Amino acid sequence: MSQQNMTIAALQQAYQTGDLSPKQVIENALERCQQYLDHNIWIELFSMEQLQPYLDALENSSIEEKPLFGIPFAIKDNIELAGFPVTAGCEAYTYTPDKSAFVVQQLIDAGAIPLGKTNLDQFATGLVGVRSPEKWGPCHNSFDKDYISGGSSSGSAVAVALGLVSFSLGTDTAGSGRVPAAFNNLIGLKPTRGLLSTDGVVPACRSLDCVSIFSLTTDDANTVFNVAAEFDANDAFARPNLDTNKGNYGQLAESTFSFAVPKPDQLNFFGDAEYAEQFEQAVKHLESLGGEKHFIDFEPFFTAARLLYEGPWVAERRVATEGVNRQAMLQVIQDILATQEDARADDLFKAEYKLQACRQQVRDVLQSYDFILTPTAGTTYTIEQVQADPIKLNSNLGHYTNFMNLLDCSAIAVPTGFISSGLPFGVTLFSRAFSDARLLSYANLMQQTLRLPLGAMDVACPDSSAAISSCGDRITVAVCG
Amino acid sequence: MSQQNMTIAALQQAYQTGDLSPKQVIENALERCQQYLDHNIWIELFSMEQLQPYLDALENSSIEEKPLFGIPFAIKDNIELAGFPVTAGCEAYTYTPDKSAFVVQQLIDAGAIPLGKTNLDQFATGLVGVRSPEKWGPCHNSFDKDYISGGSSSGSAVAVALGLVSFSLGTDTAGSGRVPAAFNNLIGLKPTRGLLSTDGVVPACRSLDCVSIFSLTTDDANTVFNVAAEFDANDAFARPNLDTNKGNYGQLAESTFSFAVPKPDQLNFFGDAEYAEQFEQAVKHLESLGGEKHFIDFEPFFTAARLLYEGPWVAERRVATEGVNRQAMLQVIQDILATQEDARADDLFKAEYKLQACRQQVRDVLQSYDFILTPTAGTTYTIEQVQADPIKLNSNLGHYTNFMNLLDCSAIAVPTGFISSGLPFGVTLFSRAFSDARLLSYANLMQQTLRLPLGAMDVACPDSSAAISSCGDRITVAVCG
Repeated sequence: MSQQNMTIAALQQAYQTGDLSPKQVIENALERCQQYLDHNIWIELFSMEQLQPYLDALENSSIEEKPLFGIPFAIKDNIELAGFPVTAGCEAYTYTPDKSAFVVQQLIDAGAIPLGKTNLDQFATGLVGVRSPEKWGPCHNSFDKDYISGGSSSGSAVAVALGLVSFSLGTDTAGSGRVPAAFNNLIGLKPTRGLLSTDGVVPACRSLDCVSIFSLTTDDANTVFNVAAEFDANDAFARPNLDTNKGNYGQLAESTFSFAVPKPDQLNFFGDAEYAEQFEQAVKHLESLGGEKHFIDFEPFFTAARLLYEGPWVAERRVATEGVNRQAMLQVIQDILATQEDARADDLFKAEYKLQACRQQVRDVLQSYDFILTPTAGTTYTIEQVQADPIKLNSNLGHYTNFMNLLDCSAIAVPTGFISSGLPFGVTLFSRAFSDARLLSYANLMQQTLRLPLGAMDVACPDSSAAISSCGDRITVAVCG
Repeated sequence: MSQQNMTIAALQQAYQTGDLSPKQVIENALERCQQYLDHNIWIELFSMEQLQPYLDALENSSIEEKPLFGIPFAIKDNIELAGFPVTAGCEAYTYTPDKSAFVVQQLIDAGAIPLGKTNLDQFATGLVGVRSPEKWGPCHNSFDKDYISGGSSSGSAVAVALGLVSFSLGTDTAGSGRVPAAFNNLIGLKPTRGLLSTDGVVPACRSLDCVSIFSLTTDDANTVFNVAAEFDANDAFARPNLDTNKGNYGQLAESTFSFAVPKPDQLNFFGDAEYAEQFEQAVKHLESLGGEKHFIDFEPFFTAARLLYEGPWVAERRVATEGVNRQAMLQVIQDILATQEDARADDLFKAEYKLQACRQQVRDVLQSYDFILTPTAGTTYTIEQVQADPIKLNSNLGHYTNFMNLLDCSAIAVPTGFISSGLPFGVTLFSRAFSDARLLSYANLMQQTLRLPLGAMDVACPDSSAAISSCGDRITVAVCG
């Protein structure tokens, strides 16, 4: 058969017409997984035997009852699935939980089938996807094996891009759910902090951690988000969703919109002229859709970003890995955890005051525009380049991502084009907390008008099932299903 | 003349009829201040000469333009007034600011006249009102000089209770705006964190500090709150008010209401049977007004409270007094600042996780009832008693107050009766952030039905100018003005 369209909508249609069964889809997927073993996507890929109970659970059910009926997904291996080991990319850390993370359980209850646990930068510390011990190896980019996949949610992104699963869960503290989306031509939704439960998720910086969603389309991201965003009172950092952020995907208030970009001298492409050109094109595309472009001073965002690794927030990562033998970790992780070891509570308060000042400075900006637009990453690198300079190049990749959770924003990574080598480029739309539905809607508008192929597959962009608001008279309204 | 009714409404009426002028009121007030010098209320009481510019500024104005036209008020001496020294109760700390605190400026712009800077527990660290250096001495209770005034906003409370000013500003980090209200028969509003700017306020725990309001009536507290609660983008911790918390003072949604109290075994009156009896009476009064009483588990509130002085939050007080010679401080303050000195950033994150768990545990409780009711303090003490046991007795007074800002609640202290010695007793109504208007409305309902005399004066409780919602058919609706 030709390459299967793995979007949720496509699979559901095939299930409804009887063209495919969940069992066939899972079998096909596992078969395809075998072709990509050298990408180092999985820490554990499940067998058909292990997956049978999930298929059995669908038997007396239907798509009407379960919005993710028979949809295969992947789980980053710092999120618990009952009965399967969690490694967080560190063998010495391994434990096997009795129950699944709250968010995983929501998805399974909705009919989704977990195909395996995916590779990641150890303890979710990194944006590169190469910080895995030798046992699992660096995760390779879905477009070019020489290139990094982005991290830390490396395997989760590549699994979706190669059509092995329909969607996946990552985590995103500093950009781990967005950078791999950009490098693998995917939608990467980093929801508002607290909307997706982090109960059963190995903490990185517990006060900032988010569970994120990789998908091929914004429709799929929205479908998964709606299932996953259940309030969990057992997660201390959980927040109930707001009514204004529910059920209004695709509905844009105005026929024109406004967005802001950093002042030109605050953009940094690290010498990558093609990335710079791609960003310019993305901006022009938004303008052609009726978007009014504004320039903003990005300094408060950068100031906040610097606090994450240059300030006492590193202490959170230390608390998260307390009790784990440091010697069992990769050297680069040991080095990061060894910084700020003498930071006192007094220092943290001072840093929190600095952060609070940044939050106040960006309050108006975040409220003034429908979204803010940046490149998701300023450039990309080969695995070899990163291995030769693991700290600095990793840090470059966080230029537009590190501030997001510190400043309590919601964000979505959206593919917008390809550079001459064929590698994908993407942008990030972000706004204040509880803007997920609005961001998804604008991302959908972009995806539906750019109509890029999905992931690293030869599958055309399908029409969205959401009504797309027309912006001026420039957009063809596409409604289906 | 007989004792002047110093409520804002009474003064405004006297100004409008021409019975009094602002100048006369200020002169009378300064004269009365001289009678109470032995109460140690003021750190600096201004002279008529110093006050003349404020009177002059009223000349081409009117009550219609300035809602606080000619209203005298007092400022706790950790809040800046342009051109006057700030001591924070520590001579070595003294500095003279060029401009007034944002919140003070709002009040002055509205026509209010600052009569002086008031005594306080040094660096606002204490709930007793006796932690002042010899130079200023302990602030005495307005009902009985042997008793503590409560602190840290001691002078601000006593000045209002004795009718020297109409209202005053305090600060409230751990209870400093509520405990002195209870001990001096006053309304003490501790607004939602961030609604009153802390720009120009000497920090205690900067992430928790609130400016608070002492007044004789809830009407006055509401009037001052409406003037003072202006968003200040220069205050990193400022938050804009919500529409649901504006302009609806006196409007209660339902004819019945529900309130919660700690389980009986979680109440602590430190052996004070009269206080226990008073609390019971207050609960019965609310039930007689149509209130449905519920019991809640208070443990999460107590757990949060313990974090404030037994956890790394002490580091905030240390940061706030950085650069001040410790030897110049009172011994008790030195001792407090010397605790938790080895607390690391890691420890603070762990404490913040504990706090976050408490926040999550009380989320439902705070949403389930119109308000939660506690005694404001479990007992009271003489100045001598506190001087003999300064840490423990101070700590007892925070039993029902220390958690409030850590758990992001709004609160109001309301007088409800007197014990046999003639000393006042009061309760605190609290709820989640942005409940100020609702709490003020219920406090008004209590004040209008209890009709206690005002402060420590022989002045009867006036009718409220707010329409009081009837609760069932038990309340006489009082509308005036």
